[in-house]
Amino acid sequence: MKKKTVIALSCLLLAFTPVVLCAEDDVMAKAQKIFKPIPKTPPALSNNPLTTAKVNLGKMLYFDPRLSASGLISCNTCHNIGTGGVDLQETSVGHGWQKGGRNAPTVFNAIFNIAQFWDGRALDLKEQAKGPPQAAIEMNTTPERLVATLKSMPGYVEAFKETFPQEEDPITFDTTAQAIEAFEATLLTPDAPFDTYLQGDSTALVKQEQEGLKLFMKKGCSSCHGGINMGGTGYFPFGVVEKPNSEITAGDTGRFKVTGVKSDEYVFKSPSLRNIAITPPYFHSGKVWSLREAVAIMGSSQLGISLTQDQTDKIVAFLKTTTGVQPRIEYPVLPAITEATPKPKLD
Amino acid sequence: MKKKTVIALSCLLLAFTPVVLCAEDDVMAKAQKIFKPIPKTPPALSNNPLTTAKVNLGKMLYFDPRLSASGLISCNTCHNIGTGGVDLQETSVGHGWQKGGRNAPTVFNAIFNIAQFWDGRALDLKEQAKGPPQAAIEMNTTPERLVATLKSMPGYVEAFKETFPQEEDPITFDTTAQAIEAFEATLLTPDAPFDTYLQGDSTALVKQEQEGLKLFMKKGCSSCHGGINMGGTGYFPFGVVEKPNSEITAGDTGRFKVTGVKSDEYVFKSPSLRNIAITPPYFHSGKVWSLREAVAIMGSSQLGISLTQDQTDKIVAFLKTTTGVQPRIEYPVLPAITEATPKPKLD
Repeated sequence: MKKKTVIALSCLLLAFTPVVLCAEDDVMAKAQKIFKPIPKTPPALSNNPLTTAKVNLGKMLYFDPRLSASGLISCNTCHNIGTGGVDLQETSVGHGWQKGGRNAPTVFNAIFNIAQFWDGRALDLKEQAKGPPQAAIEMNTTPERLVATLKSMPGYVEAFKETFPQEEDPITFDTTAQAIEAFEATLLTPDAPFDTYLQGDSTALVKQEQEGLKLFMKKGCSSCHGGINMGGTGYFPFGVVEKPNSEITAGDTGRFKVTGVKSDEYVFKSPSLRNIAITPPYFHSGKVWSLREAVAIMGSSQLGISLTQDQTDKIVAFLKTTTGVQPRIEYPVLPAITEATPKPKLD
Repeated sequence: MKKKTVIALSCLLLAFTPVVLCAEDDVMAKAQKIFKPIPKTPPALSNNPLTTAKVNLGKMLYFDPRLSASGLISCNTCHNIGTGGVDLQETSVGHGWQKGGRNAPTVFNAIFNIAQFWDGRALDLKEQAKGPPQAAIEMNTTPERLVATLKSMPGYVEAFKETFPQEEDPITFDTTAQAIEAFEATLLTPDAPFDTYLQGDSTALVKQEQEGLKLFMKKGCSSCHGGINMGGTGYFPFGVVEKPNSEITAGDTGRFKVTGVKSDEYVFKSPSLRNIAITPPYFHSGKVWSLREAVAIMGSSQLGISLTQDQTDKIVAFLKTTTGVQPRIEYPVLPAITEATPKPKLD
């Protein structure tokens, strides 16, 4: 008999059960409707079926700095597998030490977002993967240079052929992005205490954390930060009630830049709050390093409430329970360059 | 009975054995005197005993960009485990996109070098590890900032305590360097075809490669590039016979900058030729990308000879047999930062 059923029966049968236990169970039942646990294995991608070869190739590409013009910047530079899938920078630093416009979102569990980038301008991770290589302030290369680089290395020629056997010309910008998406889809962080809780084990969260969860749902945080990823589910103004000060918004009009629609001004995709305690700084501007402060700002700007110290502490305690088991990745041995490989271009 | 003994006996007993076989065996015997195979396990370090905890901690530190002021540059940036332990750059790029003065030597098998850096200014890897963090054009931090950064993270506090239980203050610049050295000592590339050959299997090298090896010893290359690491054994002028053009020397006076002794002008530690085919570009200046060209330059500058096309091809073919099995490393999950962690410093 599952623990969840046991607890439900306890509430039903034992009239003398303290009210708080049933109330706790109500919290769990409500939470189970709003959130879903992170699975241990990636979801099926309808337009990009995962294969072992594709995931392995994607891993090589993800860690390969030669995808950038300088030969210095890889996907992992800004979405570091060792540090929560982010770079712990206000905004990322790219080609020529240029500072990017927005904080790097985590790659972990990103497969569950409805779209990618803060403004959702990429439909999926495959489309997202095509962005940074071409951005002048990020990897500063071109699809042509990138493909020429990969084609110059027999190790990649072989790996692409094996991964895309049906393709006459296996190395393209598109197959590169497909492979990267496939690898990224495997970057999941299951088994957080909150996942265990969602699976029916109420002991996985201590009292303060459960109270934080309750507040998180009751105050409305979960309206934008629900679902499997606790965010990444839709677009919302920053802020709904009160616009945060300009230092925090950094004058960034968000999704308006994508759609040109007035009502999209200062609208952003709600970020995932999974692993949020280990991925500061916060917001698209990366201007806030303290999770407590970020929670307080969300309270006032999105919900129009002033959270008490105690409430903030509880919500922060709850958010820390979303830190899952981080992916264990074997660092790839990358193909050797040849004399045909384009030389690093630093300027 | 060992294969080596069998072959020796063959030469002794079988009078009708073709001369070439005995000559090949002579090549092997000579090679076995000059070189040694890369072992599968690291050597014992007299002043820094390896422990599992120390190697694991060292791996975390090696991959941790927060050891730099910017939070962007780790040991692995310039000594990339995925690309032969180097960055495939002419000279490395560091803090603020500044270009370093010399080509990054490979970290693989570096434990076998008599000293570290091109000019041997660091006695060992532990001392070497203290250099780049402090160099303004590399990681641009200070021992104080680095130690404060590590001490701000409970994950590191725990790992250092476990690794250095006898230390009252486990996190120091010195223990950091010790741990990095311990990890680096494990970065070996055994089982290259040449290692198999040195262990007595003459079939590990094809005829052209064996001829290359023979030339490599006969022409004098092995005088500076002998030993287990095929280099890293002593200091030699660049060049012994004829100074290469200034584009290649880049006006770098080498060891003279360390000793101030006139005879050390343009003197460098001979680099290891292990894995040389996968670690271009070549020389301290990184000005030469072609291994063939590098071999030809060495012939003229160090040996005063003009190698024929065929000889160069053979030596290059031989050098390719020194590419060993690359280390397989699990990318470390790094400790989470706290609000006490110094913020990235980009300028």
